[in-house]
Amino acid sequence: MSETVTLNNGLTMPLVGLGCWKISPDICAEQVYEAIKLGYRLFDGACDYGNEKQVGDGIRRAIDEGIVKREDLFVVSKLWNTYHDPKHVKLALQRTLDDMKLEYLDLYYIHFPLAFKFVPFEERYPPGFYTGAEDAKKGILTEEKVALIDTYRAMEELVDEGLTKSIGISNYAGALVQDTLRGCRIKPVCLQIEHHPYLTQEKLVEYCKLNGIQVVAYSSFGPQSFVDIDQKLAKHTPPLFDHPVIKKIAQEHKVTTSQVILRWATQRGIAVIPKSAHKGRLLGNLQIDQAVTLTPKDLEEISSLNKNLRFNDTWDWTISKFPSFH
Amino acid sequence: MSETVTLNNGLTMPLVGLGCWKISPDICAEQVYEAIKLGYRLFDGACDYGNEKQVGDGIRRAIDEGIVKREDLFVVSKLWNTYHDPKHVKLALQRTLDDMKLEYLDLYYIHFPLAFKFVPFEERYPPGFYTGAEDAKKGILTEEKVALIDTYRAMEELVDEGLTKSIGISNYAGALVQDTLRGCRIKPVCLQIEHHPYLTQEKLVEYCKLNGIQVVAYSSFGPQSFVDIDQKLAKHTPPLFDHPVIKKIAQEHKVTTSQVILRWATQRGIAVIPKSAHKGRLLGNLQIDQAVTLTPKDLEEISSLNKNLRFNDTWDWTISKFPSFH
Repeated sequence: MSETVTLNNGLTMPLVGLGCWKISPDICAEQVYEAIKLGYRLFDGACDYGNEKQVGDGIRRAIDEGIVKREDLFVVSKLWNTYHDPKHVKLALQRTLDDMKLEYLDLYYIHFPLAFKFVPFEERYPPGFYTGAEDAKKGILTEEKVALIDTYRAMEELVDEGLTKSIGISNYAGALVQDTLRGCRIKPVCLQIEHHPYLTQEKLVEYCKLNGIQVVAYSSFGPQSFVDIDQKLAKHTPPLFDHPVIKKIAQEHKVTTSQVILRWATQRGIAVIPKSAHKGRLLGNLQIDQAVTLTPKDLEEISSLNKNLRFNDTWDWTISKFPSFH
Repeated sequence: MSETVTLNNGLTMPLVGLGCWKISPDICAEQVYEAIKLGYRLFDGACDYGNEKQVGDGIRRAIDEGIVKREDLFVVSKLWNTYHDPKHVKLALQRTLDDMKLEYLDLYYIHFPLAFKFVPFEERYPPGFYTGAEDAKKGILTEEKVALIDTYRAMEELVDEGLTKSIGISNYAGALVQDTLRGCRIKPVCLQIEHHPYLTQEKLVEYCKLNGIQVVAYSSFGPQSFVDIDQKLAKHTPPLFDHPVIKKIAQEHKVTTSQVILRWATQRGIAVIPKSAHKGRLLGNLQIDQAVTLTPKDLEEISSLNKNLRFNDTWDWTISKFPSFH
């Protein structure tokens, strides 16, 4: 088991979970099941990851075998960009629940502060970025005319109906987080953002702490996640695993560099959702708080690696791909 | 007269205007009147500047003397943070119109993407940052629970009613501009932002161009505007007027450094609203397009001074001053 935090609605969430992005469907059920056996309780998935059926299969197998009960788990999904119109929000969550064969989620995020034109399930699921093959060829994204707070208010109704215990926001810039807090009835419990030693987001993290929003980091290892998907910036950025500062601290504490990076985040009070195909590494990640405690000087030294380097920048989509808005 | 641009609603706006921030009320009417005589047609004011009566006085004098007609002018004001609740938006504009003795504005902005608790006119006007003296002493800002798009929708009604010909947004980050476009019925005509060679905002500017939103720059001279109000960061930043690159280009073209800085902006298609107490300089600013045309290389060299240096950072208010949200 990992450390836990109490969210602003009273729910308990593990500080370390398994991120399901890029887990191939053919091994996903097995990996989720094995992770549960190792002690993982938080599973961070999304419609867009295209493996929710398999995440559900892994969970159900563990429940069926009596390893955990549903209420021991913290199951997360995310509303995809094509379902932002209030009339599609519940449909989208219901599809996720049906795929996972679950009755409720613990946390449902708005995946991105972007709204794309609706694509019906029967046409394509998950729908990805483009409205159709023509648009995909031309690289044109088509937006849906809906404001984020209107989508968020439809998310609040899902809490009222008991379909998810909590709602969250993801990839929101600070100004959008503030606006959500001013316009909401039910506070978001979490903000999930790209966060690593090259992108420490000090102000955003501080603001969330002050306002009782738990920050969840994705891509904790920085460029690593984006090298896999062949991103230029990522391929030209020195890997954090080989960074002399991280290596030095890892050697001092006799742990791996990835453990140093994760522990830096959790000691900042930030939840992490790494994934790994290696059992040993999965366990090391989960029990990171038992493996090492970094000194304030270590933490500061790692934070000072910040370069405001963002690998998942939605500007890159919106500027280059929207020839005009409407 | 200055160059003009056509806004997305068909209205014509001068590319150079007079910014009314920090023009002292005792000289403001005179300065506005003199500026009109020099050929200024765009006046960029705001409730918060505390001089709208005087701006109105200057305008009326020029109209009474037959120098201009109301329809020749482009009069701008901004909704202050304390009036974001939809039920206060029209009241606030009406107060501005009453103070200026005008029947309509040409452009009404949302001044900041921040909503502060309402302060009644009779209690304090303009209300500034704090709800009361107690809060001011403690430096505590109290927010109003209202989402920006709800405020924006109340602004749209002002256009319907003919109280303002256009609406705009100011100090919005890119993600908020995108959200406004997705949630609006009437597009904002302008985005007013801090913009100078130390803060070139390339992506935001490009996005606005793609989407037909005119960018208006404030604090075009960078630190200069904030040295006046004793800001630390500004005082420790080398003035743009003395920057070797700007000086070299000014010498090459035989113009002043301030003209180089303004022309760089207007050649980027960005409107500017400088102020000056010197008649000669006012005229030089207004006719900047006749004074000098910078080469593509000049423009690039100036843009490369960018340091993402923001003097008016709302994070500084929200983090240090909001102990908790609600």
